[in-house]
Amino acid sequence: MLLRSLHNPYSHRIQTRLASSVTEKAAETAEKATSTVTPQPRSRITHLLYRTLAGLGAFIVTCGGIVVAFFIYDATTYREDPESFDLQLSDLALNPRRGGPKNLPIAEYYVSDDEPEFRDQKHKPKLVILGTGWGSVPLLKTLVPGDYHVTVVSPSNHFLFTPMLPSATVGTLEFRSLVEPIRKIVRKAKAHFLKGSATDVDFSEKLVEVESYGANGEKQHFYLPYDKLVIGVGSITNPHGVKGLEHCHFLKSISDARKIRNQVIRNLESACLPTTSDEERRRLLSFVVSGGGPTGVEFAAELYDMLNEDLCKFYPRILRNEISVHVIQSRGHILNTYDEALSKYAEERLAHDMVDVQTNARVKEVQADKILFTQKDAESGKVVTKELPMGFCLWSTGVSQTEFCQKLANKLGDSQNNKHALETDTHLRLTGAPLGDVYAIGDCSTVQNNVSDHIITFLRTLAWEKGKDPEEMHISYNDWRNVAKRVKSRFPQATDHLRRLDRLFEQYDTDKSGTLDFGELSELLKQIDAKLTSLPATAQRANQQGIYLGRKLNALSRAAPGMRINMIADGDLDEAVYKAFSYKDMGSLAYIGNAAIFDLGGFNFGGGLLAVYLWRSIYFTQSVSLRTRMLLAMDWSKRALFGRDMMNY
Amino acid sequence: MLLRSLHNPYSHRIQTRLASSVTEKAAETAEKATSTVTPQPRSRITHLLYRTLAGLGAFIVTCGGIVVAFFIYDATTYREDPESFDLQLSDLALNPRRGGPKNLPIAEYYVSDDEPEFRDQKHKPKLVILGTGWGSVPLLKTLVPGDYHVTVVSPSNHFLFTPMLPSATVGTLEFRSLVEPIRKIVRKAKAHFLKGSATDVDFSEKLVEVESYGANGEKQHFYLPYDKLVIGVGSITNPHGVKGLEHCHFLKSISDARKIRNQVIRNLESACLPTTSDEERRRLLSFVVSGGGPTGVEFAAELYDMLNEDLCKFYPRILRNEISVHVIQSRGHILNTYDEALSKYAEERLAHDMVDVQTNARVKEVQADKILFTQKDAESGKVVTKELPMGFCLWSTGVSQTEFCQKLANKLGDSQNNKHALETDTHLRLTGAPLGDVYAIGDCSTVQNNVSDHIITFLRTLAWEKGKDPEEMHISYNDWRNVAKRVKSRFPQATDHLRRLDRLFEQYDTDKSGTLDFGELSELLKQIDAKLTSLPATAQRANQQGIYLGRKLNALSRAAPGMRINMIADGDLDEAVYKAFSYKDMGSLAYIGNAAIFDLGGFNFGGGLLAVYLWRSIYFTQSVSLRTRMLLAMDWSKRALFGRDMMNY
Repeated sequence: MLLRSLHNPYSHRIQTRLASSVTEKAAETAEKATSTVTPQPRSRITHLLYRTLAGLGAFIVTCGGIVVAFFIYDATTYREDPESFDLQLSDLALNPRRGGPKNLPIAEYYVSDDEPEFRDQKHKPKLVILGTGWGSVPLLKTLVPGDYHVTVVSPSNHFLFTPMLPSATVGTLEFRSLVEPIRKIVRKAKAHFLKGSATDVDFSEKLVEVESYGANGEKQHFYLPYDKLVIGVGSITNPHGVKGLEHCHFLKSISDARKIRNQVIRNLESACLPTTSDEERRRLLSFVVSGGGPTGVEFAAELYDMLNEDLCKFYPRILRNEISVHVIQSRGHILNTYDEALSKYAEERLAHDMVDVQTNARVKEVQADKILFTQKDAESGKVVTKELPMGFCLWSTGVSQTEFCQKLANKLGDSQNNKHALETDTHLRLTGAPLGDVYAIGDCSTVQNNVSDHIITFLRTLAWEKGKDPEEMHISYNDWRNVAKRVKSRFPQATDHLRRLDRLFEQYDTDKSGTLDFGELSELLKQIDAKLTSLPATAQRANQQGIYLGRKLNALSRAAPGMRINMIADGDLDEAVYKAFSYKDMGSLAYIGNAAIFDLGGFNFGGGLLAVYLWRSIYFTQSVSLRTRMLLAMDWSKRALFGRDMMNY
Repeated sequence: MLLRSLHNPYSHRIQTRLASSVTEKAAETAEKATSTVTPQPRSRITHLLYRTLAGLGAFIVTCGGIVVAFFIYDATTYREDPESFDLQLSDLALNPRRGGPKNLPIAEYYVSDDEPEFRDQKHKPKLVILGTGWGSVPLLKTLVPGDYHVTVVSPSNHFLFTPMLPSATVGTLEFRSLVEPIRKIVRKAKAHFLKGSATDVDFSEKLVEVESYGANGEKQHFYLPYDKLVIGVGSITNPHGVKGLEHCHFLKSISDARKIRNQVIRNLESACLPTTSDEERRRLLSFVVSGGGPTGVEFAAELYDMLNEDLCKFYPRILRNEISVHVIQSRGHILNTYDEALSKYAEERLAHDMVDVQTNARVKEVQADKILFTQKDAESGKVVTKELPMGFCLWSTGVSQTEFCQKLANKLGDSQNNKHALETDTHLRLTGAPLGDVYAIGDCSTVQNNVSDHIITFLRTLAWEKGKDPEEMHISYNDWRNVAKRVKSRFPQATDHLRRLDRLFEQYDTDKSGTLDFGELSELLKQIDAKLTSLPATAQRANQQGIYLGRKLNALSRAAPGMRINMIADGDLDEAVYKAFSYKDMGSLAYIGNAAIFDLGGFNFGGGLLAVYLWRSIYFTQSVSLRTRMLLAMDWSKRALFGRDMMNY
């Protein structure tokens, strides 16, 4: 407005007054402007410097503040005065009664049962969980604390984040970053922990026999009564009947990883000694991995990384020239459970890293200083025996059953037919054991895909409705849709193979009668069985099973009052309250030496450093606790700043 | 200027032009002002909030920037392509000649001798350093790289920060935070490292016999030739001839600390088992420390901390009630090398923490489940034998000689008279070995305080000047001042006792002749000997000796060309180029359970948490590398955030 009015020619006076008032305003504004932008007279660089220093100062003060706050917090974490408690102890906890088939002590009550946290669970159903791995821990985390009187039994008192174990063998990660004390997890779930190994189960008296180390270090046995038992004891490495495995390392536990680390360093140190001949040095530095699965390949990749990045800095250079890493794989490709393009990418990567991959090769025997294997010649097709001098051998060739699981399988006789794992139904109940008493999850178990065996069950309701003998029924397309629905609910794995019901119906209606008879339906279900593969022995599967079982046990606990009122005690309670277990493949990943591959169903890719960061991020988020995440971040930074620690002790 | 010009009355036109130009400027300025001071209309709180959020944003962006920068740095630390080198290798390095008294291989040349970093040292004097502890590492860090052909020999490939080892036994600190790979230190000093143990020295042929593990894990021996040898092999724990030490733990190395940690956790786990009786539980939870020195007391304190702060969170409460920690000390007070007020403060602290301290008690025998000790009754003075059931015993009762040092002492015969350590002169040269060839530093050695034995040496120059037999001389006060000066330079430890020369002269001039005769002087020096105590077997002393020896070896190397020109090869070269070793006590500190004590000569104090932070700060700064410092800070934070890791593997 002011500006527009000036364009109108007014009298001199007005003009002057306006001008003076305008100038006053201008002066005022100018003054204001000057006062807010004091440093203006200084040069831009000075100003920028001033701002930067102020920002830096503020940053340092903030960081300092955080440190001081942390120190104050830290000071509150020390306990000054020793604590002591008044405890009630039941006599039965101190002097357990003896009984069971072997007349051993029966641990019905614990010394901690009367503590305030545990008092209200004292008379809840007893849930015993064997194992502290990828199945048991998610189960514990899913359970509603206090619904059961939970006891965890395991020879190891930590949960191990197995997928990153190969990284710990060469010091990329520290052992502590991969483990979480089980007592922390157990306490959160208001459960009890007993360090020991289950050696037997008495299914009729509902007793687990546990072996533990007594006060004098001697082995002792006792019984643990259960109402529900969960077996999650894992697996052992499959020896495949090969001789000389005592010369091999395995990679299942933290102490395995430590032994490997020590052996690798020991070999490097021995190779440096002036008394070691050239031939011995080459042998000491020949590292062999038997098994081209994820564990074997990741170990080879980590080993190569360490040798390539850290060895040269500290060891004589001759070692770098004489080192060799070999992978012996029985199949045509390494990582054969992955997409073939990824397998090939991994093979190229390893070839670039000068890791020697022997495919179609089967180890025959391992000796102290060499490994013998047979290999089919690609051209002639002849099988020849080869020999590889070696200073270190990792044996990582699939899973096999623990002694305890074998014993249980034998006890259950014909119900158990799998040589490598305990069979369960799709509700994860151990086949052959009293229904709903015993569950098996994780590597030690396999879910039976025997759809066709259950044909009668599927037809029973239908037959009952129609008042017919199931074996003589003729099933219309509508009935078939009904049956298929039941199959899907009982065997969620079969869902993928039951998508085009019309086509299946047409295909198996061989006599084109418009109905399926018993024989035709049976044939159809058998074909589905043949297509179903057993679930992989992975952390992912165990994790899903643990969570599934936790949710079901919660549901069972919620349903218990209603069932008591209705006097329901027997029957298929699991099916009544919860759906069957359904496995969802979330994909697999593998680290292959400054590169990583991702097999995510349809979406597969592999790549270099960015993929490695992605691979780390995924495991970082999946890691078990804030503590392990902090430690992982720390370990990766440490590697970047200081390299790996080349020490053994 | 613009404003001032407006006050002069100009023509209408000019005025108008000016006014319009001024108003344009004013409008511009106003616009500017509005845009810069936009938030003014808002309230103060909004403004403050705005500023805080902006600050927080800037802080997060800065932190994010640092993280991104770190990732970029991290990405540069991966090596894409495998390296390989062309290497020259001397035939003698690959096939060492045999010789020496036992006709073993002699390692004169190494496979790394022809690498660019090492080529120019190939023909330098060979310096062999035995051990990688508190003496050897400071020595290595002090040496000018390249002056000698340096070889470090040790069975352990890491340097261990021993003063904090007790903290690692219960998981307050991690093992990795206390160790530094020796090859890192060795590489910086341009030295070579061989993993092995010295078993013997041939002083005449200048060969060290080294035992190492060969390619097949078998023990093998070879010779290492030296021009100068430094023995820094440390000590073993003193068994004091007590029976049953196989039931005890020691605390010298990382693997000792790990064994202790595992045993403590194992006892806690066994104590939780339902088969463990009340009596057995009390025994399992009875932790005994034999020896009230710093190691023993700090271990007891750390153990108490862990039991008090972490145990209750995760274990049944009955354990806390039944735990007992005992310290058995042979002297009247624990920490008897510290100021008595501090000892008493520590005792009060431990008493408050319910740690049972038994003083004036000597362990007689250790059995698997109990410890027997004799104790003098304070009142009756009678010695009674007592018995303490225990589940764990730490034996930390002073130092003793390793087998290797015993062998050397025996070999040198009468020159070596100390049962517990190798004797050296004040130039740290091994007494009895050819002068200037062999040095001994750290716990394995002791500096001889035999001033009176050197009386002739001190008087020789004086006697030669006066042309007399030293034994018949009469020494005036002036001569005495001369002699005292020489004593101080040769035995710096005696300096404190030679402050009032006039008084000493008067006191020992028994016949008041105004001169000292040989007998009188000899008596005087013997009295000084009696007052001199041997140096403590501490990290501090070893550290000072290592630095001292490094500086002297540097001086010797610098002086070598001059000595060659002057054809000087024999004689007391050490004394010619460098002063004698003088120990400066920097004080001692100890952690005593949420409190710490400081014995800094005159300035002694003890206190709670602030003293603990000070104690940590001192060790933090003394820690060996940036890497260990980062890890220490991390460990302390981890303890505060997540507690100690209660696991064993």
